[in-house]
Amino acid sequence: MKLDPTKMADWQIAEAAETQMKSIREIGEKLGLQDGELIPMGRNVAKIDYNKAWSRVKNSKPGKYVDVTAITPTPLGEGKTTTTMGLVEGLGKIGKKPVGAIRQPSGGPTFNIKGSAAGGGLAQCIPLAPFTLGLTGDIDAITNAHNLCMVALTARMQHEHNYDDERLAQIGIERLNIDPDRVQIKWVMDFCAQSLRNITIGKGGKMDGLEMESGFAISVSSELMAILAVSNSLKDMRERIAGMVVAYSTSGAEITTADLEVDGAMCAIMLEAINPTLIQTIEGNPVLVHAGPFANIAIGQNSVIADMLGTRMGDYLVTESGFAADIGFEKFWNLKCRCSGLKPDAVVIVATVRALKMHGGGPQVKPGKPLDPAYTHEELALLEKGCENLKAHINIVKKSGASPVVCINGFYTDTEAEHNLVRRIAEEAGARCAVSKHWELGGDGAVELAQAVVEACEEENRFEFLYDLDMPLMERVHKIATELYGADGVDWSETATKKIEAMQNDPKTVEMAICMVKTHLSLSHDPDFKGAPKGWRLPIRDVLIYKGAGFIVPVAGDIKLMPGTGSNPGFRKIDVDTDTGKVTGLF
Amino acid sequence: MKLDPTKMADWQIAEAAETQMKSIREIGEKLGLQDGELIPMGRNVAKIDYNKAWSRVKNSKPGKYVDVTAITPTPLGEGKTTTTMGLVEGLGKIGKKPVGAIRQPSGGPTFNIKGSAAGGGLAQCIPLAPFTLGLTGDIDAITNAHNLCMVALTARMQHEHNYDDERLAQIGIERLNIDPDRVQIKWVMDFCAQSLRNITIGKGGKMDGLEMESGFAISVSSELMAILAVSNSLKDMRERIAGMVVAYSTSGAEITTADLEVDGAMCAIMLEAINPTLIQTIEGNPVLVHAGPFANIAIGQNSVIADMLGTRMGDYLVTESGFAADIGFEKFWNLKCRCSGLKPDAVVIVATVRALKMHGGGPQVKPGKPLDPAYTHEELALLEKGCENLKAHINIVKKSGASPVVCINGFYTDTEAEHNLVRRIAEEAGARCAVSKHWELGGDGAVELAQAVVEACEEENRFEFLYDLDMPLMERVHKIATELYGADGVDWSETATKKIEAMQNDPKTVEMAICMVKTHLSLSHDPDFKGAPKGWRLPIRDVLIYKGAGFIVPVAGDIKLMPGTGSNPGFRKIDVDTDTGKVTGLF
Repeated sequence: MKLDPTKMADWQIAEAAETQMKSIREIGEKLGLQDGELIPMGRNVAKIDYNKAWSRVKNSKPGKYVDVTAITPTPLGEGKTTTTMGLVEGLGKIGKKPVGAIRQPSGGPTFNIKGSAAGGGLAQCIPLAPFTLGLTGDIDAITNAHNLCMVALTARMQHEHNYDDERLAQIGIERLNIDPDRVQIKWVMDFCAQSLRNITIGKGGKMDGLEMESGFAISVSSELMAILAVSNSLKDMRERIAGMVVAYSTSGAEITTADLEVDGAMCAIMLEAINPTLIQTIEGNPVLVHAGPFANIAIGQNSVIADMLGTRMGDYLVTESGFAADIGFEKFWNLKCRCSGLKPDAVVIVATVRALKMHGGGPQVKPGKPLDPAYTHEELALLEKGCENLKAHINIVKKSGASPVVCINGFYTDTEAEHNLVRRIAEEAGARCAVSKHWELGGDGAVELAQAVVEACEEENRFEFLYDLDMPLMERVHKIATELYGADGVDWSETATKKIEAMQNDPKTVEMAICMVKTHLSLSHDPDFKGAPKGWRLPIRDVLIYKGAGFIVPVAGDIKLMPGTGSNPGFRKIDVDTDTGKVTGLF
Repeated sequence: MKLDPTKMADWQIAEAAETQMKSIREIGEKLGLQDGELIPMGRNVAKIDYNKAWSRVKNSKPGKYVDVTAITPTPLGEGKTTTTMGLVEGLGKIGKKPVGAIRQPSGGPTFNIKGSAAGGGLAQCIPLAPFTLGLTGDIDAITNAHNLCMVALTARMQHEHNYDDERLAQIGIERLNIDPDRVQIKWVMDFCAQSLRNITIGKGGKMDGLEMESGFAISVSSELMAILAVSNSLKDMRERIAGMVVAYSTSGAEITTADLEVDGAMCAIMLEAINPTLIQTIEGNPVLVHAGPFANIAIGQNSVIADMLGTRMGDYLVTESGFAADIGFEKFWNLKCRCSGLKPDAVVIVATVRALKMHGGGPQVKPGKPLDPAYTHEELALLEKGCENLKAHINIVKKSGASPVVCINGFYTDTEAEHNLVRRIAEEAGARCAVSKHWELGGDGAVELAQAVVEACEEENRFEFLYDLDMPLMERVHKIATELYGADGVDWSETATKKIEAMQNDPKTVEMAICMVKTHLSLSHDPDFKGAPKGWRLPIRDVLIYKGAGFIVPVAGDIKLMPGTGSNPGFRKIDVDTDTGKVTGLF
């Protein structure tokens, strides 16, 4: 069967490709997995026993390490996962042993407007339905462990409120005196449930909880997801979970999950989540899936564990950092690589003619709306102007010392003149450049990209962090804002200043990493500032702290931890064919 | 290693037993499963492809079908799952090919006070940690599918409120005019989260949902769990999901999941949940795990699918219906067996000396509190008085036409005189009786029970339903209340009367089955009425309808669909040994 992405939906391609997929055991053999290291988890899906596999391979020489990031995307996304899959296929075509490493999709986008995060066209991972619909349950584990913590917190507040000291002493509970106004976390759910964003809980009688303001965030923004992304062992994960600060007492003391005596149970729920999931590309190359998306409001990276394993199991590990280089790659660079000890050899920046035209001043691009003709016809002037955004992202990558490779993710409506223009500008800015047609042609369409990446990986690795951990916290944020985002400076709100100064003066937090929260739709904090905006300052509204994960989280602008479901959500199209048992309509 | 339940916690026994467990492939072979019918899901856990396996075995002669129910329990439970596991082991010991069929535990009790639901002592299913902590994700699938429906409902209400007709027409959405005061379902979470019982959602601006009262119920009480329990094919499940009525419009029209265009996506999320999970007992007998607990507020049965399959794959299928014969067995009898077409050959009624003494007027039994000495010393008078409760449950089972077998679940503090007294009363009431020591001795301790069950199964099967579906709805409830519970009659509230009369007059609902909601802690609606209470009437406060599942749900007394977490919850003890990767402290 000929797979033609111009005529078939992604799920139809996946369904056809799945009829010929390799067994997951065969994929495990490609990675050199030994007996007991591969744990089958359904049809053509497995987990890798991290502890066993890592003990065996940790002293092996790592393969080349390639990160895939992007220019500032349109809300449609510019095909970063598609390019990650395409590059894996391309590397396979030129005789390398590639491994992909991506994030598990969140139910939020899946059922809302963005669809799956498996890639697209002929550059997808399969099996698509399990990948898209919960996979091996890691996000459910995070959701459950997080909510159990909230149960522990709210039940404790209720019992301390209802019972006298004698009764509490009988149970063996000491008063924590949790301040209802200083609860630091919300409940989580892995959907875009805007009606749960701000809620009042505990209504009813004294057995129905303590009445207080609360809310839900999307599961993938949970500190537990950050912990899963950066932990390098079960012990490390256990300790980070125990360190999560969930509230403060009325006297200002930190209340951790350990204080609530729920840290062990949370870790038990997350026990299997530490093992990355293994699936395959359409062309039968291995793909590790671990941790979650949303680099704007979370770390949004595939896990340290998957990358540690993957670099030891293939020639080339192609990983993906969420959104664009200012936000996803910056966290990959200064946060994730600090945890993993790995250094990227090359960084692919995915660009589309469509997004570059938007940055040049093209009409608004909105999900669910037809594209303006500017995007489907040659428009060189718009395109050239928009390349300012590309140049900014190339400069960010160059500053890390890794070799940048621009991948023009080709659309069939692009013209050769448009591609040539982007290529010239990318090369002038000091990047390699390749046009890639993996969406249409799979690995055959990504050979040029694969070759450019191989060349880039041969260069000397000059990768280094943007800042050392002894740099004062406010200075670090200033450096990120001015040197990467292009801001003139940083404006700290009073709250934010107070909080970051306290963190600066606390020896337990001063050396924590910075995890910025900022829109992915602009280099700035304002999604409407396209291109490479100049003459603006970055407002830091608040500073959160993820003490368990070990992150200080400055929040730029108004960012919601619970997205909203739109008026034409994707779930309308999803169904099951009850005769074949196949899922249909996954975009 | 000698496994001694008097010296080891259940999880320690499980951990030791797991070092010698059979591979799940071997267990699958015991069931005669063919290639492709066993889907491995982690270490020593698998799902069975229901569609494939059923197509092969549906015309085979079914084995004997045994249900395990109980007397009215103490809040500690009387060891129904333990007895189910013990009977399976006992049947194995006497040369039969037994299959167990139990429900997946809910995170509510697991992390609260009741612990796992794997059985106990030497009568447990393993592996314990995955069984207890989410297993193959069926309850997560129910939670997610249910909450996606709530997202669809609340987002739709918001969009219809915020947008004019022109905008809605552009999106292709017709107004449903959902009445915020007639939303029929809440959100779900599989914990005892009392602070989410009554909440206000949609606070904030117009993009943050519509402000309204809402709440969370425990996931296992979701109509989707009922649907999973009674569906007999994917097509059946798909149709039942589409028929769920989630709200009414301002003009009184039903709003279903299909109206919200979310039914297909819900079914996609639940696609794998239709396949039962396969694990094993400590002695290597097969156990199917499917659907969920809580026969007081839900159907609380293992699934029709698991029983249909299991009766075709073994000589004896031992299934379990939640709580006591008045509530769990009654639903097994008149609801589940109507869906499956199966007829039980024997029904085991689990009794403990402890619970019978409580029914005789013994002091209160409360989780977390030490037992009064009355329960650990011989007390024949209390015991004899309490046997009124046992007799009532024997009579309920006899009314179904199935052969009753009383299993005295022996505790090491019981005396022989106590056992003899219960045995005499049980036999006088027309039941077989066996003392079983499976908790202490595994299958060797359950040989007497197994033999009694085999004998009971040889009797002529006179099983028949308590009522036919053409009996008027109120009459059916009257019959259940008076003939089974021992009430003098039924008092219907005004609301309940109005609702059930409307259902009686609606040809689409008049033939639906009755699924009672009532406390499990008494034959009556009041948990404080112990023994076999006389001279009381059953108050029906409300009548719910699960149109998708096909249940009419009369609610007796004040029952909460979201239990509360106590002040000494089990999660305090649960942890992970980060050296071995094993979960500790699961009771």
